[in-house]
Amino acid sequence: MAAPLRLGIAGLGTVGVGVLRILRRQQALLAARTGREISVSAICARDRRKDRGISLTAHDWEDDPVALARRDDVDVFVELMGGSDGPAKAATEAALDAGKDVVTANKALLAMHGQALAERAENSGRTIRYEAAVAGGIPVIKALTEGLAANEVTRVMGVMNGTCNYILTRMENAGLPYDEVFREADALGYLEADPTLDVGGIDAGHKLAILSAIAFGARPDFDGIEIEGIERVSIDDIRHAADMGYRIKLLGVTQRTGRGLEQRMQPCLVPASSPLGQLEGGTNMVVIEGDAVEQVVLRGPGAGEGPTASAVLGDVCDIARGLRLPTFGQPAASLQDLPRASTGLPAPYYLRMALDDKPGAMAKVASVLGDAGISIDRMRQYAHSDDTAPVLIVTHKTTRSALDLALAAMEQTGVVATRPVALRIEHL
Amino acid sequence: MAAPLRLGIAGLGTVGVGVLRILRRQQALLAARTGREISVSAICARDRRKDRGISLTAHDWEDDPVALARRDDVDVFVELMGGSDGPAKAATEAALDAGKDVVTANKALLAMHGQALAERAENSGRTIRYEAAVAGGIPVIKALTEGLAANEVTRVMGVMNGTCNYILTRMENAGLPYDEVFREADALGYLEADPTLDVGGIDAGHKLAILSAIAFGARPDFDGIEIEGIERVSIDDIRHAADMGYRIKLLGVTQRTGRGLEQRMQPCLVPASSPLGQLEGGTNMVVIEGDAVEQVVLRGPGAGEGPTASAVLGDVCDIARGLRLPTFGQPAASLQDLPRASTGLPAPYYLRMALDDKPGAMAKVASVLGDAGISIDRMRQYAHSDDTAPVLIVTHKTTRSALDLALAAMEQTGVVATRPVALRIEHL
Repeated sequence: MAAPLRLGIAGLGTVGVGVLRILRRQQALLAARTGREISVSAICARDRRKDRGISLTAHDWEDDPVALARRDDVDVFVELMGGSDGPAKAATEAALDAGKDVVTANKALLAMHGQALAERAENSGRTIRYEAAVAGGIPVIKALTEGLAANEVTRVMGVMNGTCNYILTRMENAGLPYDEVFREADALGYLEADPTLDVGGIDAGHKLAILSAIAFGARPDFDGIEIEGIERVSIDDIRHAADMGYRIKLLGVTQRTGRGLEQRMQPCLVPASSPLGQLEGGTNMVVIEGDAVEQVVLRGPGAGEGPTASAVLGDVCDIARGLRLPTFGQPAASLQDLPRASTGLPAPYYLRMALDDKPGAMAKVASVLGDAGISIDRMRQYAHSDDTAPVLIVTHKTTRSALDLALAAMEQTGVVATRPVALRIEHL
Repeated sequence: MAAPLRLGIAGLGTVGVGVLRILRRQQALLAARTGREISVSAICARDRRKDRGISLTAHDWEDDPVALARRDDVDVFVELMGGSDGPAKAATEAALDAGKDVVTANKALLAMHGQALAERAENSGRTIRYEAAVAGGIPVIKALTEGLAANEVTRVMGVMNGTCNYILTRMENAGLPYDEVFREADALGYLEADPTLDVGGIDAGHKLAILSAIAFGARPDFDGIEIEGIERVSIDDIRHAADMGYRIKLLGVTQRTGRGLEQRMQPCLVPASSPLGQLEGGTNMVVIEGDAVEQVVLRGPGAGEGPTASAVLGDVCDIARGLRLPTFGQPAASLQDLPRASTGLPAPYYLRMALDDKPGAMAKVASVLGDAGISIDRMRQYAHSDDTAPVLIVTHKTTRSALDLALAAMEQTGVVATRPVALRIEHL
């Protein structure tokens, strides 16, 4: 048997503890599969005295993750601290410079500094693996980088933030408004310390930036993603969408178009009967489309101790087995700086508006849409007791820019109380 | 850039031609991703003159696959001929003995001779990869062997024969009997030359044997699988199952129980609303459950030129990148000879019988079940015009052996026309 693979683990939250638990429980299994013993030389976290439910006395303790990353008895630096900058970045850089491989669950770090880190890893002949950074326990990074490597990827899309999906499905199933479910999720500990990371779509955006880089051989471009969170999704929209056979999901889409790379993370309507539409709670789903494979769909738990630790240790097993890939599947220098295509590909849209209950009001709305070249697929006006009528319109395919002009013009007519809600409809 | 990776391809059916097409179309992409040019030194097939729709003049032709496998200018032998013995086996062995890596789509070969081939590969320091052998374009071998390597797998299940799933969904959607849809599928070219391989569950069984070996570190044991084909699934059963919220699928299940390895490939009822229940046509789905990851579901095309070629070339890319794993994820010598657990874990069952329309008939059936300790979850008797009444029973969990005793006793009562149909119900 080859020499043991020695880990240094920085960050002992849920995932770090999960990694230690699996390493202890499955020591023999991991050795059988990788041909090496996997050991933990040292660990590091913010608070040494915190009770984490497992004994830590078997491992050296370091207060400084950078010192941990540089230790002679560490082969792989496992970064589970999080944060795009600060200690996580400093320690990852130190590890690579010291000739260690890195395994991380840190999506923000990769999305923001992936290019520089990829170059750094290549300069040291080391690898950065990050299966746990995207879609929890689902081995999607591996599927995209390796299993589907012979494909020219055409589109990747998915639901990649379990907290948002929990909130949206809970709103629908319990008929509760956003604010109330948000408070519930917070009380359950489902939200990040800064909840905007979740509900604002930032966290899911980080994941999308990583998938884009691999799928299209592009430099990670988080700032190029059009991001819209779920904060403004109302229970009314969820109900109306359901009424027309749709469900609302925070959906990430990345695709290469003739004009460049289109990356979006936004609440969308998807058919309720589609795989994405049926996704409940904290489950994640990623759909990969390629010229050869057509479509592969991967589904699994998006977070949690076991699933995320499974992904971290899958990466560790790869390294133990000698697999070292360029960070985004091809050499960093070959990653392209793709132009950003504003989200211009036409799609059908769902519109909801509060229409004045006056003769001619509907005609004005309809003619604004007609003037903008937008045709109506379906329309519903609901019964109402006040002086505005809830009106839903599903358009045929149109561009977002044409739609935005029409929505502005609609406001000018004076027959809609506020600017209509507009949500893209995505068909699988 | 490293030296080119030179392939020898044996078998130029749909998949072989697909591999050549992708290699030509995506030459630059594959080189960017693997760091090497991937070239084809020589090819081989049964009939040199057959028109395959692409030019083959750029490659040397060999009539003998064994000679192809041994060529000095071949680094990887790509076996796409099929068949568990004969030329496929001889050429694969020759390739390994000559120090070549092997990529194959041949599930029968691996299921029947996997252990010996794995040992042979290890003796030569070479690898056998076979992503295309299971579930077409879905990178499930990679997910199980690598991505989920840190898991103690608890169960793997799935729909792995697209032809059977096509037949079953077509029967349901068109309301057609088995024989008619079978003839349709045959006319469409969906069936193997020996259709028993498909509809008899043999092909899917080969795939299950491979998944079992990886999941449980066991020697492949195809003969240990309890296999039942779809030939006796009737349109009546499909309709009645649908009526109670189920769909019938040819479902493979492998799990390790206290008594050994339980492997089954048989028509089962699954909830119509479950991911497996919703699988249409030729699509495949594999569900992997592990102690850490909980449950991961993979879905994609189970066959076809593009998807299968995608899987073959994914393996080629792995080899180009230097990844060489033991065939079933751990050294062949460490694979265990697990005892066969007869399919004894209790499950609910669907029973359909033609009951004599006489006073006391139902009481007799019910008391036979009661005497066997089998309790009834749901029962329906349908209106009928002749003198036997269609009766459906869904039992609570029971063992197959208790059920078989009860079914035999039921026949003895003289109130059922023939032995009742019994199908296992599998909940995800």
